[in-house]
Amino acid sequence: MKARVYVTLKKTVLDPQGQTIHRALTGLGYRSLKAVRQGKVFELELNGVSKEEARRQVERMARDVLTNPVIEEYCYELEE
Amino acid sequence: MKARVYVTLKKTVLDPQGQTIHRALTGLGYRSLKAVRQGKVFELELNGVSKEEARRQVERMARDVLTNPVIEEYCYELEE
Repeated sequence: MKARVYVTLKKTVLDPQGQTIHRALTGLGYRSLKAVRQGKVFELELNGVSKEEARRQVERMARDVLTNPVIEEYCYELEE
Repeated sequence: MKARVYVTLKKTVLDPQGQTIHRALTGLGYRSLKAVRQGKVFELELNGVSKEEARRQVERMARDVLTNPVIEEYCYELEE
């Protein structure tokens, strides 16, 4: 079973990396671009667990290890 | 209109960062975890363009700017 965990900065946290990319792209002529935010994605592969158990484990890994809860938030999706 | 661009290392490219996370999580007891790969996600916000034009622009930004075609590949999705 595969899972994708997306970790992004909270909306209230400044994202200078995203702002730099935004400026660069605007400078290249992409005028309709209003904002860019950058985050991380983790592709996890789990074996030998039920979907319910996979969901529990992915949720826990995302919350406890992959995300810094002070400045980041996460979401995830499971694929068969 | 919003778009999400996912940039990940090609399958044939070694991902030491993902391997380190994999080892750390296995050490924490997540034995069913078989592999981890890390990538980047860019959240783009575009204004005043049609869906078709947004798709064209996002495709071009992803290909020409956000991805290093030697070692990375991308995919993207558009939301209204």
